[in-house]
Amino acid sequence: MEKVRVGIIGFGCRAYGMTEILLGFDDVEIVAICDKYEDRCENGRKLAQDKRGFNPFTTTNYKEVLSMDNVDAVYIAADWEMHFPIAIDALKAKKAVALEVGGAYCVQDCYDLVSAWEETKAPFMFMENCCYNRDELLATAIARKGLFGRIVHCSGAYSHDLRGEVTGGEENRHYRLRNYLSRNCENYPTHELGPMAKILNINRGNRMVSLVSMATGSFGMEQYVEDRRDTINPHLIGVDFAQGDIVHTLIKCENGETMMLKLDTSLPRSYSREFQVRGTKGLYEQEVNAVYFDGQPEYWSRVEYNEKYKNSAEKYKSMLPNAWQEITQEALDAGHGGMDYVELREFIDRLKDGREMAIDVYDAASWMVITCLSEESIKEGGAPKEIPDFTNGEWKNRPSLDVLDFNEYVEE
Amino acid sequence: MEKVRVGIIGFGCRAYGMTEILLGFDDVEIVAICDKYEDRCENGRKLAQDKRGFNPFTTTNYKEVLSMDNVDAVYIAADWEMHFPIAIDALKAKKAVALEVGGAYCVQDCYDLVSAWEETKAPFMFMENCCYNRDELLATAIARKGLFGRIVHCSGAYSHDLRGEVTGGEENRHYRLRNYLSRNCENYPTHELGPMAKILNINRGNRMVSLVSMATGSFGMEQYVEDRRDTINPHLIGVDFAQGDIVHTLIKCENGETMMLKLDTSLPRSYSREFQVRGTKGLYEQEVNAVYFDGQPEYWSRVEYNEKYKNSAEKYKSMLPNAWQEITQEALDAGHGGMDYVELREFIDRLKDGREMAIDVYDAASWMVITCLSEESIKEGGAPKEIPDFTNGEWKNRPSLDVLDFNEYVEE
Repeated sequence: MEKVRVGIIGFGCRAYGMTEILLGFDDVEIVAICDKYEDRCENGRKLAQDKRGFNPFTTTNYKEVLSMDNVDAVYIAADWEMHFPIAIDALKAKKAVALEVGGAYCVQDCYDLVSAWEETKAPFMFMENCCYNRDELLATAIARKGLFGRIVHCSGAYSHDLRGEVTGGEENRHYRLRNYLSRNCENYPTHELGPMAKILNINRGNRMVSLVSMATGSFGMEQYVEDRRDTINPHLIGVDFAQGDIVHTLIKCENGETMMLKLDTSLPRSYSREFQVRGTKGLYEQEVNAVYFDGQPEYWSRVEYNEKYKNSAEKYKSMLPNAWQEITQEALDAGHGGMDYVELREFIDRLKDGREMAIDVYDAASWMVITCLSEESIKEGGAPKEIPDFTNGEWKNRPSLDVLDFNEYVEE
Repeated sequence: MEKVRVGIIGFGCRAYGMTEILLGFDDVEIVAICDKYEDRCENGRKLAQDKRGFNPFTTTNYKEVLSMDNVDAVYIAADWEMHFPIAIDALKAKKAVALEVGGAYCVQDCYDLVSAWEETKAPFMFMENCCYNRDELLATAIARKGLFGRIVHCSGAYSHDLRGEVTGGEENRHYRLRNYLSRNCENYPTHELGPMAKILNINRGNRMVSLVSMATGSFGMEQYVEDRRDTINPHLIGVDFAQGDIVHTLIKCENGETMMLKLDTSLPRSYSREFQVRGTKGLYEQEVNAVYFDGQPEYWSRVEYNEKYKNSAEKYKSMLPNAWQEITQEALDAGHGGMDYVELREFIDRLKDGREMAIDVYDAASWMVITCLSEESIKEGGAPKEIPDFTNGEWKNRPSLDVLDFNEYVEE
């Protein structure tokens, strides 16, 4: 495959940004744009035309994209509700699939996605961009080198004040709004779970066994709406939101590790993923981009500790994958500080080379199922929920696979 | 009461430090020292004699201290297992009780402690020193002023690498060692839970309803012992520890808030309590001693955010209680940066004035019960556990009570 001909399904903000990156790749052609809103289709067509002179077919019916012979791959960034049906139909149509992140609404959807892939084995990659981010890769590189000892625990968060995004935008089209009004769950687990799951070799020598979730009440969105009565969409005034402001989820792994996820999206705060890796010999903390190893000086004052150790992980930057060693300014500017570029390049390269996707359908199913299981757990007062083994026991035999290869440590 | 005559029961490291502070108070006399080890009793007697010329009675039998007519109050810092029996006997002997922190081994002990107090109403204070620490008080002052809006969530940790302490010391006399070998639980919840419970008005308009706990496997202590085979107590080599390295506990409150506790004591790390308060209009983060309010600038980079907001809570320092406005160098040097001094002074002052203790028997029972409930939850795969209401419904009527009074905000 010389050129990859891509159809985009779902053309909101996320797809717009990712399509801009794809349009920068010489070996990619955008041949179709689909969204349920016609104005978005037209935005996409115009973008593709302005940037590369492409004239993609546009449609509001994704099945038309799947029936096009000249579509090699689809990038799916529809609303969360449509991720499963579109991805399943795309796999059945033997299209290569790049599926954007989100969470599942029921366990059966996850099984159906796995079955669809197992039927056709069409290339499938779950587009968890944070797995390609510099911080998370640096921590993973150090972990792979054994410098943290045996990994015992990982934690992270999706801490992002989304009150404006959820309540604003084009006539409340946003899929997040529907979800925040009607559900209470860990609705967006994969940005932190993905990198942790890779470090802990989930589905590859290890697996997630069970979870518990607990949510606060829903106070943040309602306060936000109340404080903006004069300017906000009047339909939102006095409305009850279902989504708890902060949701914690604890996950137990087969090999004795735990993971902690936090969803934190409807109270005032500044963005953070709070990624941490803890081992018997050391740790990584994204908050200060620090490594700390057994025997190093301790500080009672955290402000002093931060001063001393911040950016100490940079000592190991030679171990970052080539994609990050050679990153261009264009890539860094392209979206979320470079990770989107690295991720998309990797999808296209693996597709062209026929290489195995490093975030596969088993990862997608087991990461997305956290959402509906957390919903059940919260409803049942924090009851533990078993996490299905979508690999049907194969997790025991599947070898560890990182999203990118790491380099050796070179002393500076 | 002009002078408070104190007996010390349990004379390990903790009691030594606290007795040094008490010996600095003119209105306190140390009249008895008790420990099950005679050498420790002698250490205590010598300390009291050297510093103030006291000649306290020493004994290995705490009941002898309780039977002394010239003992007004006992400070109990025995091993965790003995906290309940000694405190219950002391209350029944009508002694004022200052009970050091720890966790419960069974729910019934907590009920028995409450009953003993309700029988005699002898003054009782649970000695949770972190409730008197500057950071936590500053956050509470700001919360009380309403600047965080409605409080939604609090979190904190006891993150303290105790591997050396647990495995070392005088012939492994340490009560922690026994616990780490035989139990797996949130064994030390109160340093973070205490300040959170005060902010959330637990037992005073609110209550803790249920919890779930999850623990990692036990890897850190065994690695630590293995790495020190040549120097460590040989009895510990190859021994299995029961305590998981990191234990997370999620607590649901009657009024819709949640709390998250982390015990993190057997992996390499630097000390932190990670205290956080989250509300609909702002937050406090101990890690950077920061406040952040709705509408302030956000940063994608956490390192930049830390730089911008670190120590921003200091703007509100005029609101700190008088004890922290007037703190002396002697107090700051006395133990844990001043909080032990402030706490002990408060116990003595309230006792002399006959004022209600701000951390009472209901707080002690409901905070310590977390330990045995977390143990059950972990054993049962994270099953939710109901938290008893030790106030028997009175939590609805009891007014909020802070450990110290706050001052007004004064612009600098």
